[in-house]
Amino acid sequence: MNQFTKITATHITHFQELLGDENVFFDTVQLNEFGHDETEDLVFPPEVALTPRSAEQVSHIMKFCHQEHVPVTPIGSQTGLSGGALSIHGGVGLSLKKMNAIVELDEKNLQITVEPGLITEELQNAAIEKGLFYAPDPSSKGSCSIGGNLAENAGGPRAVKYGVTKDWVLNLEVVLPNGEIIWTGSNTLKNSTGYNLTQLMVGSEGTLGIITKAVLKLIPFVPNNVSMLAPFTSATKACEAVSAIFRAGITPSALEFMERDALDWIMKFDNSSSIHIEDSTQAHLLIELDGTNMDLIYQDCEKVAEVLEKFDCGEILLADNEAQKAEIWRLRRRIGEAVKSNSVYKEEDTVVPRFELPTLLEGVKKIGKAYGFQSVCYGHAGDGNLHINIIKGNLTEHQWNQELPEAIREIFELTVSLGGTLSGEHGIGYVQKNYMDIAFNKTELLLLKSIKNVFDPNGILNPGKLFVTT
Amino acid sequence: MNQFTKITATHITHFQELLGDENVFFDTVQLNEFGHDETEDLVFPPEVALTPRSAEQVSHIMKFCHQEHVPVTPIGSQTGLSGGALSIHGGVGLSLKKMNAIVELDEKNLQITVEPGLITEELQNAAIEKGLFYAPDPSSKGSCSIGGNLAENAGGPRAVKYGVTKDWVLNLEVVLPNGEIIWTGSNTLKNSTGYNLTQLMVGSEGTLGIITKAVLKLIPFVPNNVSMLAPFTSATKACEAVSAIFRAGITPSALEFMERDALDWIMKFDNSSSIHIEDSTQAHLLIELDGTNMDLIYQDCEKVAEVLEKFDCGEILLADNEAQKAEIWRLRRRIGEAVKSNSVYKEEDTVVPRFELPTLLEGVKKIGKAYGFQSVCYGHAGDGNLHINIIKGNLTEHQWNQELPEAIREIFELTVSLGGTLSGEHGIGYVQKNYMDIAFNKTELLLLKSIKNVFDPNGILNPGKLFVTT
Repeated sequence: MNQFTKITATHITHFQELLGDENVFFDTVQLNEFGHDETEDLVFPPEVALTPRSAEQVSHIMKFCHQEHVPVTPIGSQTGLSGGALSIHGGVGLSLKKMNAIVELDEKNLQITVEPGLITEELQNAAIEKGLFYAPDPSSKGSCSIGGNLAENAGGPRAVKYGVTKDWVLNLEVVLPNGEIIWTGSNTLKNSTGYNLTQLMVGSEGTLGIITKAVLKLIPFVPNNVSMLAPFTSATKACEAVSAIFRAGITPSALEFMERDALDWIMKFDNSSSIHIEDSTQAHLLIELDGTNMDLIYQDCEKVAEVLEKFDCGEILLADNEAQKAEIWRLRRRIGEAVKSNSVYKEEDTVVPRFELPTLLEGVKKIGKAYGFQSVCYGHAGDGNLHINIIKGNLTEHQWNQELPEAIREIFELTVSLGGTLSGEHGIGYVQKNYMDIAFNKTELLLLKSIKNVFDPNGILNPGKLFVTT
Repeated sequence: MNQFTKITATHITHFQELLGDENVFFDTVQLNEFGHDETEDLVFPPEVALTPRSAEQVSHIMKFCHQEHVPVTPIGSQTGLSGGALSIHGGVGLSLKKMNAIVELDEKNLQITVEPGLITEELQNAAIEKGLFYAPDPSSKGSCSIGGNLAENAGGPRAVKYGVTKDWVLNLEVVLPNGEIIWTGSNTLKNSTGYNLTQLMVGSEGTLGIITKAVLKLIPFVPNNVSMLAPFTSATKACEAVSAIFRAGITPSALEFMERDALDWIMKFDNSSSIHIEDSTQAHLLIELDGTNMDLIYQDCEKVAEVLEKFDCGEILLADNEAQKAEIWRLRRRIGEAVKSNSVYKEEDTVVPRFELPTLLEGVKKIGKAYGFQSVCYGHAGDGNLHINIIKGNLTEHQWNQELPEAIREIFELTVSLGGTLSGEHGIGYVQKNYMDIAFNKTELLLLKSIKNVFDPNGILNPGKLFVTT
């Protein structure tokens, strides 16, 4: 275990001189604001929060903290679901929210260079204005930042066709834990020059360095899409249909699964919806098809409908105007919020090869029965990525704190046995680190830790994340 | 510099006991066969060549060599263009050619698990038989192996739409230099669980571990395509047209550039071609458009033609039957071979953001003029990936060995100043390692070397590659 230095008045004065008083926060209320993300009800405030404005300022902060053995937790826009932004060991909370510029939108090369604090939807909109497309769309796209997306390798519904955040990154400017500034690659679509530091940084959850600029790929805007909401009387059948759609030669731009309970929570939370759900419906698939040519999209809709019929699908709602599409997508995007409004919950972000989804879902329900918990399952079925919201409800503190971790371990063991892993798009962070031994054997874990040690020999950057022992 | 142990009769006996006599080669003629790839005329034979049949055998070999400080050079199908498979320091040449099985083609999850020695085209054909698609298509696809593709992060024409080898890898089984066997990830389309060891391994040129199994993604087969061969009276105009095609909203499935000289070499080498080239033509673009719907493909062809007209394009040859397509692609695929048949040459694999291609091309010609060398330029223009074949021709040995490295340095400096890097798809290997300081500063190089040291503390795996000092 590392011995960290506590923040002193001298440290604070140093930061004030470096950044100006307006970028240094040490009031308890403010620190609590910097001490949470969207993970459960956890709050771990830093001892001081800083809002630097440039890579050079970040570099100064890191150099100082490296020398002084002060822990540093990078903080994005605090929408994370694995506790990556929590200042577990106090120290400096390094918020990137003021570094939120679009540095350059290069229309000639279809690239955009941005700072980490930029909100994902603002990036998407800037691209759309120029007829271009940045596809990754986490459900929190209106509030999450690109730095956090990079740190956690965020996904979203469109990942099934367009890939996750990692697939859109060309090059990163990174401040290392010792304050040195590097670029990880080049601004090119291909690169076979040295080890792939870019992809090592993406998904490293702020434990290897602080991303201060990102060069991202853009593609021509895809103008048209249609969504289909398909009800099933069996959740297993719905899951089985997912893999069949791809085998029929169709790659939807989104393919989401929601079990009955998810819809019920939503309807309770948001009773403005006009969508009618039959009593017999046990699950829905929400399928989006996109492209440039509407005729072709409708042809694909028909093919999808033919596939779904084989899995006892009910009447499909086809949404091809903006209002309809907004309504059914609002249901999907607000499930997390709806569940949270009713009960404390833990969210698991399991991912398996997509054909294994029915087996995973059935296994989760069986484990829930054995341990006595209720779960709401939904997610990006096209990617095999199932979000499992475990509801606290009437569970006792003992059940919640002592027994549930065992149940979660069983869920992850099942996931890994199906060729899957612990997290598809939320990261490991603070809340899943105890389960890393399920996904990695000792040799593999040692390799991960040794890589961490190369970047951060003093162990000051985002300690208490990813690994049990830091 | 590492002190390596020479191979002794005892070592050979040990290997024979482990692998059987038929998998141990130490005859000079045989060793010379294992001592080259397709890089220039270089030959560096190992002291003993081994052809293991399983990951367990590879593990035994590595454990032994790790303990004995014997250097090991992984050898694929010897089609590399950066000298990655050359046994610079002698020792063991570890050929993976007998590990060439398709372990499993999982139609339900659209995944294929293969051994590294499998020829890329055989993998593609196995997928096609099931109506599936593995897109990466290096020009050497009929003879290169998937292990080599992974090691060098190989590309090919279709990378412009479908990505390079790295974009098709889900999970890798790897034998580490000390003999331990790991899996780098999970068999899932998304993964936010720990550092991305998979992408760290891809493109690491056999310096971090030996890939013994790869789980690769497949997609539904894309049935239709059309190719267009477009002549230009100016190579610069041809390059300028490349970026304009994407800005018009079209993503071709291939977008290749060939300057006049490339075609002339080909016509000399292969006079069976019926394609007529006007005297005034200075360059061609070869554009492929693919999809499921032929009408849509033809519509896109028209859009492309409209764009090309703005750049003074001549009469476009539209190839929509198999014979025509085969003929124009044969021209493109055989350029390297044609140049090689006439002269010793060095090939650079520069890559820049695609709009910078005209500037790069003009710079290369200017540097050629200053140093007195002729070059043949062609490549994957859609990716900004320009292959520069520098012809030895009448250059003196002094010019070739002493002056040319300076000229190449100037080319790479130009490349990097344009936001590009040294290699897009061939790797650094043996022949470009002296230029790594152009792409990476000291901090970045130290980071790369420290990562190497984590995996291979004894420095036995593929020494003499990537870095100047190993």
